[in-house]
Amino acid sequence: MTLADVDHRARRSAVAAALPDDVDGVLITNGANVRYLTGFSGSHGAVLIAAGGRSVLATDGRYLERASAEAPGIECLQARRAGTALVEHARTVEIARLGFEPGDVSVAAFDGLAAAADGIELVRAPRVVEEQRAVKDAAEVAAITRACEITARAFEAVIDELRMGVTEREIARLLIAAMQDRGAAGPAFDAIVAFGPHSAIPHHEPTDRPLARGDLVKLDFGASYEGYCADMTRTVVLGPAADWQREIHGEVADLQAGLRTAAAQSSLPRDLDAAMRERLDRLGRPTLHGLGHGLGLEIHEDPFLTEDSPAPALQAGTVFTIEPGVYLAGRGGVRIEDTLVVQESGQPRVLTEATRALIEV
Amino acid sequence: MTLADVDHRARRSAVAAALPDDVDGVLITNGANVRYLTGFSGSHGAVLIAAGGRSVLATDGRYLERASAEAPGIECLQARRAGTALVEHARTVEIARLGFEPGDVSVAAFDGLAAAADGIELVRAPRVVEEQRAVKDAAEVAAITRACEITARAFEAVIDELRMGVTEREIARLLIAAMQDRGAAGPAFDAIVAFGPHSAIPHHEPTDRPLARGDLVKLDFGASYEGYCADMTRTVVLGPAADWQREIHGEVADLQAGLRTAAAQSSLPRDLDAAMRERLDRLGRPTLHGLGHGLGLEIHEDPFLTEDSPAPALQAGTVFTIEPGVYLAGRGGVRIEDTLVVQESGQPRVLTEATRALIEV
Repeated sequence: MTLADVDHRARRSAVAAALPDDVDGVLITNGANVRYLTGFSGSHGAVLIAAGGRSVLATDGRYLERASAEAPGIECLQARRAGTALVEHARTVEIARLGFEPGDVSVAAFDGLAAAADGIELVRAPRVVEEQRAVKDAAEVAAITRACEITARAFEAVIDELRMGVTEREIARLLIAAMQDRGAAGPAFDAIVAFGPHSAIPHHEPTDRPLARGDLVKLDFGASYEGYCADMTRTVVLGPAADWQREIHGEVADLQAGLRTAAAQSSLPRDLDAAMRERLDRLGRPTLHGLGHGLGLEIHEDPFLTEDSPAPALQAGTVFTIEPGVYLAGRGGVRIEDTLVVQESGQPRVLTEATRALIEV
Repeated sequence: MTLADVDHRARRSAVAAALPDDVDGVLITNGANVRYLTGFSGSHGAVLIAAGGRSVLATDGRYLERASAEAPGIECLQARRAGTALVEHARTVEIARLGFEPGDVSVAAFDGLAAAADGIELVRAPRVVEEQRAVKDAAEVAAITRACEITARAFEAVIDELRMGVTEREIARLLIAAMQDRGAAGPAFDAIVAFGPHSAIPHHEPTDRPLARGDLVKLDFGASYEGYCADMTRTVVLGPAADWQREIHGEVADLQAGLRTAAAQSSLPRDLDAAMRERLDRLGRPTLHGLGHGLGLEIHEDPFLTEDSPAPALQAGTVFTIEPGVYLAGRGGVRIEDTLVVQESGQPRVLTEATRALIEV
């Protein structure tokens, strides 16, 4: 099964079936959700789904051709403001209570929708599509798997380019090129390339710092393939590793391996995060970020593996990252991250398969 | 003057001075606004500015180091939810009515802020920082000028790579590489590279379509340099141009030249857009998009040159694009776009200086 076979109408029917009882339709404005439900990938569009399943897409003149090519199976309205036009359209299909996405609609945009509503009641309908997207179908898993393979092979190719004097920016460029050479449309997000003390900064932007002997090298990057994301982090060292580098790398590798195995069907995301915090606490290391996140059409999506995550238990088809790190400010840090999928068996499978050893380049 | 000399405190004071009378402080959550007001460029942060000018930044653990490096002149709180933490902080500095950015805060985020407000009244304070950002200072104009020079030179370099069989994706990669080779941090946005009939799609994503003799080639791209954006479009043709290609290219070139000259101090953005529509109407060509947009830290920002733009008249320091197009569905289209700045003299200056002729490659 490939993305070309996706039945977008069935996805829209599933949304209609999952609507809360108190609405007779929902307005979807989040771009990734619109793409998921229609195939349309332009940056401005919205879709209206009535409780019975009938749907309409709206976009502006820039994207009409793309909409008819990518989303042939759905009626498309041309409108400068897709959301407002669909609220007006909702009246013609006798929708009285219309759900909207409170996490996507800004207060200003809501004011605009409310002005157009004219008798239609707007009701918060949070995360209806996100919850559906958190469980991937076979075509989506295949696309993410490909994105992850490209990412892992690009890592191996770029390791050979790590030598004294090369800069973070240069390595970031090489990572992107290595992914594109292997079929990626581009990077799924801005790569983190961090040398030496920069590796202690969890989210660091590449600079012109040249690589020096003894530097830890943290690479956090991923490919985008047919709209789907990969995410992987590895940390290596230039030249022989110092004892403290081996120590923190070992801590993270052990922790990450344990959490990878624990992340099976019916694990609760917030419990996995709590397990990481507890382990870091016992090691005397501060927790600077959550354990991981779902990914798919977006690089960060449900389920979030964080302290207060409301996400339900993992199930077959959930795709997510496991990415603990230990950071010593001013010296260096180590993070190891994989993208995983829960298989039909209930067990997790790593999609970013590449060595996690502390490679001494 | 360079970006290193920017006085972020003065920018915050200007915001404090411009606050509506009905608030005693404002919560800024929009990422570009936070960067503009503090220098901090991480993806999660917020800043609270009291009417008296005192300010606090908040971000999470991933970004603490970056915040202290990039924004040394402002107190920084660590918080998993920067906005909520600053609403709570507002109470300690006796803010009773707190402005927020309705175009940036989602309805769901607003619900979270309201839950933390506990007696503080949250008041819509739209576009306070955006209006300030619409007029660039000398350091910003210098950064945008550099981004535009990189863009224009990259265009000239890539023209030489246009030959039969090269794909849209390959040209997109070459454009990015050509910009990076000339000092860009990366692309300011996903490049549009459209061959043949694809050029009739105003916003087209690069595909594997190979370039064929007689194809129009539309390139819409720009560099990112020290956080600032450039934006330029040129349309050329592979091999001798057909009459219809010359005709629409001539229409667009004339129209664009006239509008570039008209875009001087005290022109109203919506009037410029109306002039474009009128000209296109007279030519019998449909209007598929607005005339242009401001740019700076964001690729699309105030002022918008559109039909219903509320933007005030252009003034010295306003940076914006002029980008009309004519599109013949199924055959091809032409767009010509420049980034311009209004000079102290009141006259516009083109920053993306490269030939606009219909080059026959």
